[in-house]
Amino acid sequence: MTMSQLSHHEVTVLLLALAVLLGAARLLGELARRLRQPAVIGEILAGIILGPTVLGALLPGASVALFPREGPLALVMHGLTTVAITLFLLVAGMEVDLGTIWRRRLAAVSVGLGGMIVPFAIAAPLAYSAPVAWGAGPEQPRLVFALFLGTAMAISSLPVVAKILIDLRLFRTDLGMTIIAAAVFNDLAGWIVFALILALMGHTAGAGLSVPETVGATLAFVATMLTLGRWAIDRVLPWVQAHLSWPGGVLGFVLVLGIASAAFTEWIGVHAIFGAFICGVALGDSRHMHARTRETIDQFVSFIFAPLFFASIGLRVDFVASFDLVLVLIVIALATVGKILGCVAAARWAGFVRREAWAIGVGMNCRGAMEIILGLLALDAGLIGERLFVALVVMALVTSITSGGIIDRVLGRPKPVRFWTFAAPRTFIPELLSHDRFDDAAAGDRTLADSGVDPAQAAAAALARERVMGSGIGGGVAVPHARLPGIAQPLIAIGRSAGGIDFRAPDGSPAKLVVLLVTPAEDPTVQLRLLSSVAEVCQSPHTVGKLTDARSWTEFLAALNAAGAAG
Amino acid sequence: MTMSQLSHHEVTVLLLALAVLLGAARLLGELARRLRQPAVIGEILAGIILGPTVLGALLPGASVALFPREGPLALVMHGLTTVAITLFLLVAGMEVDLGTIWRRRLAAVSVGLGGMIVPFAIAAPLAYSAPVAWGAGPEQPRLVFALFLGTAMAISSLPVVAKILIDLRLFRTDLGMTIIAAAVFNDLAGWIVFALILALMGHTAGAGLSVPETVGATLAFVATMLTLGRWAIDRVLPWVQAHLSWPGGVLGFVLVLGIASAAFTEWIGVHAIFGAFICGVALGDSRHMHARTRETIDQFVSFIFAPLFFASIGLRVDFVASFDLVLVLIVIALATVGKILGCVAAARWAGFVRREAWAIGVGMNCRGAMEIILGLLALDAGLIGERLFVALVVMALVTSITSGGIIDRVLGRPKPVRFWTFAAPRTFIPELLSHDRFDDAAAGDRTLADSGVDPAQAAAAALARERVMGSGIGGGVAVPHARLPGIAQPLIAIGRSAGGIDFRAPDGSPAKLVVLLVTPAEDPTVQLRLLSSVAEVCQSPHTVGKLTDARSWTEFLAALNAAGAAG
Repeated sequence: MTMSQLSHHEVTVLLLALAVLLGAARLLGELARRLRQPAVIGEILAGIILGPTVLGALLPGASVALFPREGPLALVMHGLTTVAITLFLLVAGMEVDLGTIWRRRLAAVSVGLGGMIVPFAIAAPLAYSAPVAWGAGPEQPRLVFALFLGTAMAISSLPVVAKILIDLRLFRTDLGMTIIAAAVFNDLAGWIVFALILALMGHTAGAGLSVPETVGATLAFVATMLTLGRWAIDRVLPWVQAHLSWPGGVLGFVLVLGIASAAFTEWIGVHAIFGAFICGVALGDSRHMHARTRETIDQFVSFIFAPLFFASIGLRVDFVASFDLVLVLIVIALATVGKILGCVAAARWAGFVRREAWAIGVGMNCRGAMEIILGLLALDAGLIGERLFVALVVMALVTSITSGGIIDRVLGRPKPVRFWTFAAPRTFIPELLSHDRFDDAAAGDRTLADSGVDPAQAAAAALARERVMGSGIGGGVAVPHARLPGIAQPLIAIGRSAGGIDFRAPDGSPAKLVVLLVTPAEDPTVQLRLLSSVAEVCQSPHTVGKLTDARSWTEFLAALNAAGAAG
Repeated sequence: MTMSQLSHHEVTVLLLALAVLLGAARLLGELARRLRQPAVIGEILAGIILGPTVLGALLPGASVALFPREGPLALVMHGLTTVAITLFLLVAGMEVDLGTIWRRRLAAVSVGLGGMIVPFAIAAPLAYSAPVAWGAGPEQPRLVFALFLGTAMAISSLPVVAKILIDLRLFRTDLGMTIIAAAVFNDLAGWIVFALILALMGHTAGAGLSVPETVGATLAFVATMLTLGRWAIDRVLPWVQAHLSWPGGVLGFVLVLGIASAAFTEWIGVHAIFGAFICGVALGDSRHMHARTRETIDQFVSFIFAPLFFASIGLRVDFVASFDLVLVLIVIALATVGKILGCVAAARWAGFVRREAWAIGVGMNCRGAMEIILGLLALDAGLIGERLFVALVVMALVTSITSGGIIDRVLGRPKPVRFWTFAAPRTFIPELLSHDRFDDAAAGDRTLADSGVDPAQAAAAALARERVMGSGIGGGVAVPHARLPGIAQPLIAIGRSAGGIDFRAPDGSPAKLVVLLVTPAEDPTVQLRLLSSVAEVCQSPHTVGKLTDARSWTEFLAALNAAGAAG
C-alpha cells in the first residue's frame, strides 16, 4: 500500500486542512471586501496566518501537522493547488475580449507598451548590474534574472484591474474599456515574455526540446490557438451546446480543453498556466459561450479554487523572516514609478486629458494576482530567493490596495449612493397595516422618531409632496420622499404591503414595496441620487419580487445581494 | 525537494491524465445519456477502457504511465478523487428532503424497511455460512462480512432513482415522491448501518476510539447534525447570504461545512463521505438554501467531480480478470429478488395497487452510484476481494440500466412526444419572407415536399384549419397544423420571422416563431400531443426569445437544450 493510497489519518488531515484553509481564506477574503479591497489580499493573509509566519511561530507543531511541507500530503496539496491555479488562469483568459483590444487598439497598444517598456527599461539594467543584491537565486544567469525582474515590474493584473473598475462603476466607460484593453495587451505580452524566460532557463523542458525549439513551440501554440483554435472552438461550441447535456457538455468541454492546453505548455517547457490562459482567451472569445456557463465556472473557480491557491501561497514562506524593508520599498518604488510614468506618457500621447491619463496609470499599476503567480513560479524555478519573493508579494498587495482609492481621488468623482446603506433593521417594517398612501407615509415616519426626526414634520412634508404627484414609480414600488431642514444625513424606512397601496403609479400598480426617503433640505442632490438608486435596483421585476418576499431586514439584504445590487 | 513538490514531468502527466480521464468520462457519460441510461454507466466504462482492463491489456506502458498505481501521482489522484467523492455525497445529501419523508412517512418507512430487511435477511445468512466462496477478504470476521453483504444487497441509490424518475416524468407524482421518500429513508438507514460496520472493523479509528465509542460518536453526530445542526444552519444561512459576497459566501460556507464534517467522521473512524452526506441533508433542508446555489454546486460536482471519481473506479481493477460470471449472476439475482419482493410487499401493504407496487419495487432496485461507492470502501478496507467488487459494480450497473425501461412497461404509459424530434435541419427556415399567415403556411409546406408530402395538399389543409381559427398561441408563437392521410409519421417545419406574422393570437402578438405540424390523419392524438409539447416549451417568454434568436437548426437545438427542454 506504500505510496499508492493515502492512509486514513492522511485523509483526515487533508480534509481538515482543506476546510481550515478554505474557511480562513473565504472569511478574510470577505473581510478584505468589506474594507473595499480585492479578496486576494485577505486570501493570502489567511495563508500567512496559518503558515510558518504566524501559526508556525506560535504553535509550530499545529502548523506543520496540518500543512506538512514534505510527504504525501505536501504532494497532494501541490497537485490540488496546481489544478486550482490552472483553472484560475483559464477563467482569467476567458475574461479577455480580443474585440475590445482591437476596437481600442491605438490606446491599448500604446498604454500597454508604455506600461511595459518603461518599468522594464528601468528595472532590467539595475537587476543585471547586481543580481545578488536583488535576491536572485544562486547560480542563475544574470541575463535571465534581469529579464525576469524587468517583466515582473512590467506586468499588470487583468482580474484585479477589472474588479476595481467594476467596483468604481467605471468598467463600461470609455476610460474603463481603455484600461481593460491595455491590461489585456499587457497580460498577453507579459505572459509570452515570461514563457520565453522559463524556456530560456531550459530546465523545465519535459519534451527534451532545445531552447529555440521551446520558444518556437510557444509562439506556434499562441498563434495556432488564437487563429485556428479560436475558429474551431467557435464552430464546435454550438454543436456541444445543441447535442450534449446542459450545462455539463460545455463545462466538460471547457475544462478538458483548458487542462489539455495546460499539459501541452508544461510539456514543451513553459508553465502549465500559460496554456490555460491562452486557451481561455480562445474560448472566451466565442460568441457562443453563454454568460451562464462562464458564470458557473467563474463562481466555482473564483470562490473555491482561487482562495485555496492564494492561501497556499501564504503557507509557503515565512513572511516575517524573509521580510527586507529596504528591498520591499525599492521594489514598490521602482514598480510604481516606472509603470505610472510609462502609462501616463502613453495615455497623454494617445489623446487622454491629464486626469484620465493619471487614472489609467494608477489603474495599470495594480499587480494583484498575476505578479504573485509569476513570483511563485520564479521561486519554484529557483530563479529568485524568498526575500525577493516576499518583496514582490508585498508590492502586489500594496499596489492593489491603493489603486481604487487613488483613481477615485484623481477623477474627483462622488461616491455612488446606495439607498439601503441609510436604512436599518429597526426602520424595516415587514407588514404595513394601512391601505392608504397618506396614512402609510406617516406610519413609515413614526419609525424614524428615535433618529431625532420629528415624525409629524416628516409626514407633513412627505404628504405635501405626495399631493403634488403620486410617488409610485411602477412595478409595485413607491418612493414617498421629503426634505427636512436640520437633519445630518438621509434617513430611510422600508415597508412591505401584502395587499398593495395605491401611490398613483404611472402603470397603475399598487405598491407592495414602499421606500420612504427623508433627506437633508441642505443637500438637494442626495435626494435625486437616492431616488435613482431605488429606481436602478427596482428596474428588474424579479428583484422587486424577491425584495417584496423578504420578511426581515436580513432577508431584504440577502435579496439585494443575490440581485447583485450590493457589490 | 523530495516528496514535497511534484516534478515538472509529474505535473505534465497529472494534467494530461486529468484531461484524458475527464474527457473520456464526459464523452461516454453523454453516450450513455443518448441511450437513455444514467451517465454514471458511461463514466465507469471510461475508466475501464483507460485502466488495466482494456488499455492496460493492449498497451500496458501507456496505461501505467498515465495512471500510475504507485508513487506521487497515485497519491495525488487518490487525494483528488477523495475530495471529489466527498463533494458528490454532499450534493447527494442536499437532494434529501426530510419534509417529503415526513409527509409520506408510512409508505416511505414501510417500503424503505421492506426493501432493506428482505434482501438483508436473504443475503446475510448466506454470506455468513460461506464467506470465502462469496469472495470475502482473507481474515475478515464472518459476522462483519455478513453484515456488509446484507447491507450491500439492501441499499438503493437516491441520485440514480431521482434521475430515472425525472427522465420518466414521474418525479412530481404521488408514486414518484413515495419512491423518493423510501429511497431517502433507505439511503439514510443504509449508510448508518454501513458506518457501524466500518466502526466494527475498528481499524480506521483515527481518534483511537473503541468500537462502542465510535458507534456512539456516529449516532451522536447524526442526531446532532439533523437537529441542532439543521437549526443552526437555518439561522446562519440568511446571515451568510445577506452579509457575504454572492454567491461566494454561501458556496464557501457549504463546502467548508461539508468538508469539515467529512474530516470529523473520518476521524471518529467511519468514512469521510458519511459526514459529507449527513451534512448535505442538514444543509439541503434549509428553506434559505437558494435553488441557484444548489445548482452551481450541483453542476460543478455532477459534471466535473463525479465523472472523475467514477472513471477512477474503472482504473482500479481489471474487470475482465476479476469477472466471475457465476458470482455476478448470483449477486444480481439475490439483490433483485430480495429488493423487489420486499418493496412490492411493503407497497401493497401501504395501499398501492399492483402495477404501482411493482413500479416502486423496480425503482428501488436500481443501485447506481451508492452501491459502487460502498463496494469501493469495502475493497479499500480489505473486507472484500476484487472478484466480489466487480460483481457488485456489474450488479449496480445492470439494475440501473434496466429500471427505467421496466417501470415504463409496468405502468404501460405512452412515451412523451417532443415536437423537435420530428423536425430536421432542412425543415428549419431561418427567415420567413412572407408577412401574411396564409402565404407562410404554404412556404413552410414547400420545405416538406422532399419528404413525400404533397405541399399543395398540406398547405390547403393547414389553410382550411387556419380559416376556422387563427393558430397563434400567444407570446409570439404560432402553430399552424394539418392532418393528412397516408403519411407515415409527423412532419414539422420551423420558421422564424423577424417582423412577426399575424396568426390571430389571443394576446394579439404577431408570431416570430412559426411551427408547422403535419400529422397522419389516422392518428388524431399525436397532433394534440405535439401541440401540447410546443405549448409546454413556449410557455416561458425567455425560452421563446432564445428560440427566436436561433439562426440555425443547431442554435435552435442549443436553445432548447439550455432551456432544459431536451432532457
